[in-house]
Amino acid sequence: MAAEQDPEGRAAARPLLTDLYQATMALGYWRAGRARDAAEFELFFRRCPFGGAFALAAGLRDCVRFLRAFRLRDADVQFLASVLPPDTDPAFFEHLRSLDCSEVTVRALPEGSLAFPGVPLLQVSGPLLVVQLLETPLLCLVSYASLVATNAARLRLIAGPEKRLLEMGLRRAQGPDGGLTASTYSYLGGFDSSSNVLAGQLRGVPVAGTLAHSFVTSFSGSEVPPDPMLAPAAGEGPGVDLAAKAQVWLEHVCAHLGLGVQEPHPGERAAFVAYALAFPQAFQGLLDSYSVRRSGLPNFLAVALALGELGYRAVGVRLDSGDLLQQAQEIRKVFRAAAAQFQVPWLESVPIAVSNNIDEEALARLAQEGSEVNVIGIGTSVVTCPQQPSLGCVYKLVAVGGQPRMKLTEDPEKQTLPGSKAAFRLRGSDGSLLMDVLQLAEEPAPQAGQELRVWPPGAQEPCTVRPAQLCEPLPSLAESRALVQLSLSQLSPEHRRLQSPAQYQVVLSERLQALVNSLHARASP
Amino acid sequence: MAAEQDPEGRAAARPLLTDLYQATMALGYWRAGRARDAAEFELFFRRCPFGGAFALAAGLRDCVRFLRAFRLRDADVQFLASVLPPDTDPAFFEHLRSLDCSEVTVRALPEGSLAFPGVPLLQVSGPLLVVQLLETPLLCLVSYASLVATNAARLRLIAGPEKRLLEMGLRRAQGPDGGLTASTYSYLGGFDSSSNVLAGQLRGVPVAGTLAHSFVTSFSGSEVPPDPMLAPAAGEGPGVDLAAKAQVWLEHVCAHLGLGVQEPHPGERAAFVAYALAFPQAFQGLLDSYSVRRSGLPNFLAVALALGELGYRAVGVRLDSGDLLQQAQEIRKVFRAAAAQFQVPWLESVPIAVSNNIDEEALARLAQEGSEVNVIGIGTSVVTCPQQPSLGCVYKLVAVGGQPRMKLTEDPEKQTLPGSKAAFRLRGSDGSLLMDVLQLAEEPAPQAGQELRVWPPGAQEPCTVRPAQLCEPLPSLAESRALVQLSLSQLSPEHRRLQSPAQYQVVLSERLQALVNSLHARASP
Repeated sequence: MAAEQDPEGRAAARPLLTDLYQATMALGYWRAGRARDAAEFELFFRRCPFGGAFALAAGLRDCVRFLRAFRLRDADVQFLASVLPPDTDPAFFEHLRSLDCSEVTVRALPEGSLAFPGVPLLQVSGPLLVVQLLETPLLCLVSYASLVATNAARLRLIAGPEKRLLEMGLRRAQGPDGGLTASTYSYLGGFDSSSNVLAGQLRGVPVAGTLAHSFVTSFSGSEVPPDPMLAPAAGEGPGVDLAAKAQVWLEHVCAHLGLGVQEPHPGERAAFVAYALAFPQAFQGLLDSYSVRRSGLPNFLAVALALGELGYRAVGVRLDSGDLLQQAQEIRKVFRAAAAQFQVPWLESVPIAVSNNIDEEALARLAQEGSEVNVIGIGTSVVTCPQQPSLGCVYKLVAVGGQPRMKLTEDPEKQTLPGSKAAFRLRGSDGSLLMDVLQLAEEPAPQAGQELRVWPPGAQEPCTVRPAQLCEPLPSLAESRALVQLSLSQLSPEHRRLQSPAQYQVVLSERLQALVNSLHARASP
Repeated sequence: MAAEQDPEGRAAARPLLTDLYQATMALGYWRAGRARDAAEFELFFRRCPFGGAFALAAGLRDCVRFLRAFRLRDADVQFLASVLPPDTDPAFFEHLRSLDCSEVTVRALPEGSLAFPGVPLLQVSGPLLVVQLLETPLLCLVSYASLVATNAARLRLIAGPEKRLLEMGLRRAQGPDGGLTASTYSYLGGFDSSSNVLAGQLRGVPVAGTLAHSFVTSFSGSEVPPDPMLAPAAGEGPGVDLAAKAQVWLEHVCAHLGLGVQEPHPGERAAFVAYALAFPQAFQGLLDSYSVRRSGLPNFLAVALALGELGYRAVGVRLDSGDLLQQAQEIRKVFRAAAAQFQVPWLESVPIAVSNNIDEEALARLAQEGSEVNVIGIGTSVVTCPQQPSLGCVYKLVAVGGQPRMKLTEDPEKQTLPGSKAAFRLRGSDGSLLMDVLQLAEEPAPQAGQELRVWPPGAQEPCTVRPAQLCEPLPSLAESRALVQLSLSQLSPEHRRLQSPAQYQVVLSERLQALVNSLHARASP
């Protein structure tokens, strides 16, 4: 893992990356003399995404980066002045110029930990005007990061621990920064690597990639490389003309496969030779530019065997069209037969990589028992989260000046839970998760082994539980990723199901339930 | 429209915002002595999004900005060196350092114009190594911009020309830059404004916004504003205590509505008064923090009538939960009755704004004949494009060194059309679109009034058409937006349908079809 360094990343989330109403409300608070009232907001979601029973909290590192740099520049304040009433008191703009987050406190679920409906991912407290201004950027930074991390974790659960998963969705991402976010947080969620170079440079995500069809089709076979010679891997002995050697091997391969030596496309072979000359230690063939069976595969074998003679081992093949599983099985058979025929045992286990609009269903098929697929590249399905492209996080005021606040509204589901709260994650004696309890911050923490009365949301009566423990600081991306694996292992099998009828319970403490009841009663005389 | 100025925007799309295989292929081309071969790529999509028969081309302005600034910095080259083979020739990295887009030519559909499957949105030609490196960033910049512009245009078609559409999806966007892109291109596609302040500052998109529930619920009613006085709109005469005046009006309003004067929430009223003190010329009430009928509406009327006495007119109300259409109809009735009762005619037509997860279906209901809704805020549905979150654009090599190139592959749909091409849009005598013709660049342009033989893709036989004209330069965002309106009006009613069984035709010229046939024959001996 390279260190995270991104001086320009701050440009992506700036103070003005916000909804105008945050600025108009800021003026409203200021005019009412309330800019510095102590306030607390909670950022949470109301339903787990994708029909599952879990989500992962993510994006905290981006939030911290944003909060540290938060400062309105002169140009920002001037722009706000241009869209607010012309007679606005200049002192308001002076106040905006003075703002930073030095008085803001953020408590958060650790990056990569499990998150459940209603349990705050972030609890943000500080002066009312500032914490209001933070709403939109924090939502923007947390929602998508958490969504894509959750999506990646689901794909990892489907793929099982052995398959290598490559995120390659940058070109399908919703904007450049969406791509960077997707690559970072799909790695967090359990992918092995990303095609996105910037994610490697700025976030330390391992990057991977070889060649595309354009490289293959750009060669006709009549090109003359300036230097066709390749030295042996051991570095001793004379170099050989790789294209000439591949041509010799092609005859053996075609005879072995029962193909005419004219059938494999000469341009494709020239492309493979060119790639092998540049990457003798990491040669990979993309097999489906013309015909896998009659062209891609024999050309790959010819070049791989020529390289093998010089002591190099090909590192893989890739398929990007057709029935990927079936082709992988056939290719593995060909590899095994050729390994035996030409006495090159390493050829048997050359990794087979596949890609082409792979979604959860297709992935399950590719990951089935006996599949010969080793590496799976996923783009659109991981980065755009097509099953549910938004997590729908909200950021709600829960207290001002120490007094609880609650939105009642016309939709019961959109009601909020009042008061500054603490959340505890209750575990059973085997360490597995039982439920999350939301309680008021001033309540004493639950104790292991002690019975606790709690209210499932909307219940008419409380129930009792007897739990067993709890929280952590801001770790590195790699540590957070390890936490994801740990977190997922703590879910019960039924909560790990990707379409889960049994939702993980988040319950209220008795006092929190009593506060809800009293605020309801006060608002409905 | 403010000028577009975004020095930091360049940070979003940088040369390393690309797939690693572009860099490995670059090394392959360079090693093969082909870095400077003349190449041409086409960027296009294969199917119109959302089940419709049209898409809009967008993102060109971001591409131009990216191409102008394209340059690998030392840190970029160093990072690439760290992920490429350690024995890579240093001259390759020198070559990378020298790259820019001065030899790259881009031909493009004008921003905002109609785009159809297979017709290039961009045609990019230049040195092979450079134009290969541009693939991922150009796809990233064009695909989502075009998708969201198309999505916005669909929503505009559903809403009709009268409703005001506000984009407010920043918090649901896939990453900060996704939010900026969404706000820019939903405006291009036909929205009236955005909540996204940064889109106003950097792209000149009109911004809008007033207040959220947190503002309302932050007030209990016991707060004492430092300055409760408001001067009359005309600027003459003494100021009045707005809260006291609203309290007087509340009694009249409650009597008129048959409500007890204790029912409306005092905190909500205090919030409205605070907002009105800050925005007397632009007072808007958010009605559903507690109860629309028993609290939000009477409190709004009390404050609006108090303001009215001072010569100010409220500019709107907003609803964010419940049955939006039905509530709008009821609120309009209350406005009409109150306007008559209190002899304030302007109250009748106070705009009603609504929001709350509005998708195409909900929008159609809100836009129906007789709807009293005036302003519609749409977030998730416009920015994340949940019906289809990716346009799936591709970037394919069509020629190298003047020679046509074609990918055949295992999926017929993934085959490409070879050769440097030109596209013509044929129109009927009434100006409506007939079809697009793709032909080889060297073919003479079709002539108005002359019969033309063309091949629908995959057809066994050509057909003939007799058309009537054609293209434009890079306009401003506002001009492009006007073009969108014009473009949509040229679609036939059946192609404008949002689920269109009748797809707009894109056909091949006779010579292009002949070239396809010959390359097929050559690859399948």
